[in-house]
Amino acid sequence: MSESASLIEKVEELKLDDDFVDPWNVTSSSDAGVDYDKLIERFGSSKVDAELLARFEKVAGQPVHHLIRRGIFFSHRDLNAILDMVEQGKKFYLYTGRGPSSESLHLGHLVPFIVTKWLQEVFDVPLVIQLTDDEKTLWKDLTVEQSMKLARENAKDIIAMGFDVNKTFIFSDLDFMGKCPAMYQNVIRIAKRVTFNQVRGIFGFGDMDPIGKIGFPPVQAAPSFSTTFPFIFGGKTVRCLIPCAIDQDPYFRMTRDVAPRIKLPKPALLHSKFFPALQGAKTKMSASDTNSAIFLTDTAKEIKTKINKHAFSGGQVTLEDQRRLGANTDIDVSYQLLRFFLPDDEQLENIRVAYSKGEMLSGEIKKLAIETLQPIVAEHQEQRKLVTEEVLDQFMSIRKLNF
Amino acid sequence: MSESASLIEKVEELKLDDDFVDPWNVTSSSDAGVDYDKLIERFGSSKVDAELLARFEKVAGQPVHHLIRRGIFFSHRDLNAILDMVEQGKKFYLYTGRGPSSESLHLGHLVPFIVTKWLQEVFDVPLVIQLTDDEKTLWKDLTVEQSMKLARENAKDIIAMGFDVNKTFIFSDLDFMGKCPAMYQNVIRIAKRVTFNQVRGIFGFGDMDPIGKIGFPPVQAAPSFSTTFPFIFGGKTVRCLIPCAIDQDPYFRMTRDVAPRIKLPKPALLHSKFFPALQGAKTKMSASDTNSAIFLTDTAKEIKTKINKHAFSGGQVTLEDQRRLGANTDIDVSYQLLRFFLPDDEQLENIRVAYSKGEMLSGEIKKLAIETLQPIVAEHQEQRKLVTEEVLDQFMSIRKLNF
Repeated sequence: MSESASLIEKVEELKLDDDFVDPWNVTSSSDAGVDYDKLIERFGSSKVDAELLARFEKVAGQPVHHLIRRGIFFSHRDLNAILDMVEQGKKFYLYTGRGPSSESLHLGHLVPFIVTKWLQEVFDVPLVIQLTDDEKTLWKDLTVEQSMKLARENAKDIIAMGFDVNKTFIFSDLDFMGKCPAMYQNVIRIAKRVTFNQVRGIFGFGDMDPIGKIGFPPVQAAPSFSTTFPFIFGGKTVRCLIPCAIDQDPYFRMTRDVAPRIKLPKPALLHSKFFPALQGAKTKMSASDTNSAIFLTDTAKEIKTKINKHAFSGGQVTLEDQRRLGANTDIDVSYQLLRFFLPDDEQLENIRVAYSKGEMLSGEIKKLAIETLQPIVAEHQEQRKLVTEEVLDQFMSIRKLNF
Repeated sequence: MSESASLIEKVEELKLDDDFVDPWNVTSSSDAGVDYDKLIERFGSSKVDAELLARFEKVAGQPVHHLIRRGIFFSHRDLNAILDMVEQGKKFYLYTGRGPSSESLHLGHLVPFIVTKWLQEVFDVPLVIQLTDDEKTLWKDLTVEQSMKLARENAKDIIAMGFDVNKTFIFSDLDFMGKCPAMYQNVIRIAKRVTFNQVRGIFGFGDMDPIGKIGFPPVQAAPSFSTTFPFIFGGKTVRCLIPCAIDQDPYFRMTRDVAPRIKLPKPALLHSKFFPALQGAKTKMSASDTNSAIFLTDTAKEIKTKINKHAFSGGQVTLEDQRRLGANTDIDVSYQLLRFFLPDDEQLENIRVAYSKGEMLSGEIKKLAIETLQPIVAEHQEQRKLVTEEVLDQFMSIRKLNF
């Protein structure tokens, strides 16, 4: 039984509205996925509401990205303060990351990077991308060498999304920690101010956990501070905005707690919802369960087969029932895929209405999802071919950025 | 009340033969200091016995250093295996270190370095010296910058002892971690294989301790493996011998436990007894208690005053009693200072006999101790003047060593 399958069982034993969210596991007892309003309350973040969206559009001077305006990026911390800075002509920087546990990324991995890229282009700011290969060595059955190799492969996928090498620094912890003393120094400053009790509360660490895991959170925290990158910021204090999935928030709650005590500004955050597994929103898409995920290496045929075979349907079982009752788009994975990857709002709304009313069938919406994703993945594969080892080394080299 | 004073009280409440030894505190209820035979039993190390001393002399091809032959280096792990390697013409390397918590070293700090230097010269082997400025930031009220500055000052004192720059690499963790990816990679390999339960058992860490402390032991462990220094050993596996005070053994018990699991050889160890505080062997000489210590920056007059005023005497209170009963040299700090710093065995034995019999008075042995230490400290001060920032940078630069 896979880890996530057994976790679903565990959660289903609990009362119906129980969700489980930490940086390593996400499960919900509901077919519609995690209750995000409750999560905002539990985590103490703020909702991205209509007012904030309107302000965001005004400051950006253009419509916000569909992943933001559709509420997929639904929660934030201090985003208003970042918009204040933009209005005052001050620069911030972007930080996001990824834990390299598989050779290829899947579609869900793209989500934070898509919005990060949009933010970078709109606001013309530098971006640092952390690959936590140290985390993956500590949590998975992977050697240091294997994790570092996965980090480089994942970085190629990220670069293929079209990031600007002049404004983007990509680093792997197992490499970068040994190349920038400021990184380790900030890790120590943070690790001095967080107790075992605190990380047990935040991350659920226990007595049997390796000290490597216990010592890891400051490593993910450190890039939230511009002083970690003296070669980019020249030691200046620049505020940070972190687009990430909401499950990473515990790291940054900890970071924000420490920040004033080391006299550095708290990072701001913009949180996304989870990208559903093909089997449905009870879990997120996971690289370790190949049937749950559409990989960026999948062929057009594989994408078609996976969606037809595995994509959880919110439609009715019989044709008659579907025509009569219509589908539940909240739990229909094909529809959710379109929400993430079909940019045209009007077209999406037409699909939603037709499918909800029973004018459209499950097979038809699957076909639409397949036809939307196939060219995106194919284009990604074309772009990735252009990412040579040399291009990768350029992105990962310690250097000044232009901004 | 100083930390060590309150610890003495704590220990005195326990039964008479209780000693307390960990990497941060050493106290004994006995005026003669820690019961070292019991410590060997408790730590599971081996005694440096007459047989090993004889073999050591044979392999070294010369008399062993007086600190070894007088039993001040009294315990070891796998020293025979190192001597086997020497006989087989194989090279090992030396690793020792220091936690930089004060601007100047005191006499006790010199002890492991004196024997390390002797071993390096006799066996012509490379040496790495770790300055754990990260540890001091984590344990003391010192900033990263302050600790790094102390590390450099301490390194100058170490260099002044006459180490060969061609065979010796000195590094500060807060600097080196950011300059050598292999260091962090080995830290992670070790930290993956040690649980919180284990470090709680070994070091007494608790739930309220910062995760920086909990994560530190692998940083002291990593230099026990030659793969941490690819620029010296070219990635080759070379066995390590660590001369250190016995209170550092917990780190290396942990290291030796992990070593086979990362397929690297266990470091060998040669342990010294503690250098007594001037007030007596119930505690070790400590830089944080200036009256307990003779610093390498002390003037001849300060040395004289400190010994006359503070050095605990094993002699009798009245002249008559001393003439009649003689002194107890086991607890007499001036005699102990001579055991550490007077190389001539015959002269030392004459002093011991005369003082024990009451032929020599407390004031006379204090005078001998003063006259022995004054020129050693003065000579050190002369040598230290020659250690410029440039010389220091040379010792601390990442480079190949000659061996």
